Amino acid sequence: MTEIAWIASYPKAGNTWLRFMLTAYLNDGPVTSIDQLQTAVPDLHKMLGGGETLPVGDGAGRLLAKTHFLPDVGLMRLYREQTTKAVYLIRNPRDVMLSAMRHMGIPRTDLESCRRFAEDFIANEGHSFWRDHFGQGSWTTNVRSWTDRDAIRTHFPNIEVLPVKYEDMRADPAGWLRRILEFLDLGRPLGDDVIDKAVANSTFEVMRDLERRSALDAPGFSPFGGQGEFVGKGLHNQSLDFIGPDVEAAYRRRAQGDGDFAACLREFGYERG
Amino acid sequence: MTEIAWIASYPKAGNTWLRFMLTAYLNDGPVTSIDQLQTAVPDLHKMLGGGETLPVGDGAGRLLAKTHFLPDVGLMRLYREQTTKAVYLIRNPRDVMLSAMRHMGIPRTDLESCRRFAEDFIANEGHSFWRDHFGQGSWTTNVRSWTDRDAIRTHFPNIEVLPVKYEDMRADPAGWLRRILEFLDLGRPLGDDVIDKAVANSTFEVMRDLERRSALDAPGFSPFGGQGEFVGKGLHNQSLDFIGPDVEAAYRRRAQGDGDFAACLREFGYERG
Repeated sequence: MTEIAWIASYPKAGNTWLRFMLTAYLNDGPVTSIDQLQTAVPDLHKMLGGGETLPVGDGAGRLLAKTHFLPDVGLMRLYREQTTKAVYLIRNPRDVMLSAMRHMGIPRTDLESCRRFAEDFIANEGHSFWRDHFGQGSWTTNVRSWTDRDAIRTHFPNIEVLPVKYEDMRADPAGWLRRILEFLDLGRPLGDDVIDKAVANSTFEVMRDLERRSALDAPGFSPFGGQGEFVGKGLHNQSLDFIGPDVEAAYRRRAQGDGDFAACLREFGYERG
Repeated sequence: MTEIAWIASYPKAGNTWLRFMLTAYLNDGPVTSIDQLQTAVPDLHKMLGGGETLPVGDGAGRLLAKTHFLPDVGLMRLYREQTTKAVYLIRNPRDVMLSAMRHMGIPRTDLESCRRFAEDFIANEGHSFWRDHFGQGSWTTNVRSWTDRDAIRTHFPNIEVLPVKYEDMRADPAGWLRRILEFLDLGRPLGDDVIDKAVANSTFEVMRDLERRSALDAPGFSPFGGQGEFVGKGLHNQSLDFIGPDVEAAYRRRAQGDGDFAACLREFGYERG
């Protein structure tokens, strides 16, 4: 039976970076086109846009695929039995928010737009538009539904989940790529040399270069999506003070409250800040 | 068993206009929100974007749904047995091209971008990007695969197709809405009054007004899609001379050649021009 291992996350949590590393590892060389990325670790959202789904019948072997969907959207039911693994990436929601703003082309100097985006993000614990139109839920819902063992097993009874913090992967990419590859068990060599090479072939510079070339190939549809630049600097725990002290204060109130957002931050070590 | 009737077309052929009329007819009043449109005649592409599919099990009754996909993309296989009807809209490809340009926000004064778009469209008999990334094929392939009775039945063995020319629907909207409703057989009254009212509730002015209000509600994601304005003036058989006489000549060469594009134009009466 075909087995599916998801590279799952709320957006802007390092999903594409991990797909780069996995593709570089599987191809034993740098990623030189978006097609390579889409072949090695297909993006379910792009597949659906093109009218295709992942093969769920027999014989397709083990598949890796990217998703930002909540596990309970209707489409994911197609993969209920085949899903056996997920690497779930988690990132500090402060940085998710700011990365999303840049990706959407909102400059930091446009304080009014930054404020509108941040206020929506804080009030809804994520971008309300993604929740309402893209089946991704809030940051909290996305993190909870993929990492709570009982919750995820109601949707994928055969799943094992490896939660990975973006910040940890940034601090030790080779170490985490090794743990991820061991978890995925792709039946390929795991020597230090191949892992180091995959990491070296997936620097932000390499990704940014491919992003720029791809945007030239297909104007109006960056394979990275969005209006602005996709590949950022991977900063962490950034303050929202530049938008306004009240915005930073609103974030802290919610982050230190007694709701599920605060509980989720504590669980993953994001409560400081 | 759930039965699905598709409102199918290559993009920019009046699909949304027909969805407006059908929604106004079913709701017996003007369309006042995109949600109403999505409830009455859901857009498959938007559903997939949100992680949902059409219900294909028992009990959902008869569904209307919009698609631009080719019938042979993998996802459409989900609806193989349930598909019983399709209204297939066809529009003069000259006007499809120019409508797509406006929709993408390319102004007619930007002759260089117009030329690039037109040359791609003429050479590929449609927008190559839609073909390569959105599962819509070329204009020719889309028209052929939905309107050739033998071809379509290999994908949907239970289907009946009603081809409708956009230009005919523009010339006599009430008459064509009646024929479409008779074909769809929705089990509702078909008096002249209800049909005239549905047409009157679906003028370009009504659609444009909803487009503008919706864009305000959800900046950055017009429910009509695209960067530019969706609702145009519904012009027909427009010349490409304004881009350059060589572009118009290139179109005519292909339109009057001996390929399938020219054959398809002749079949639907678009060979003059």
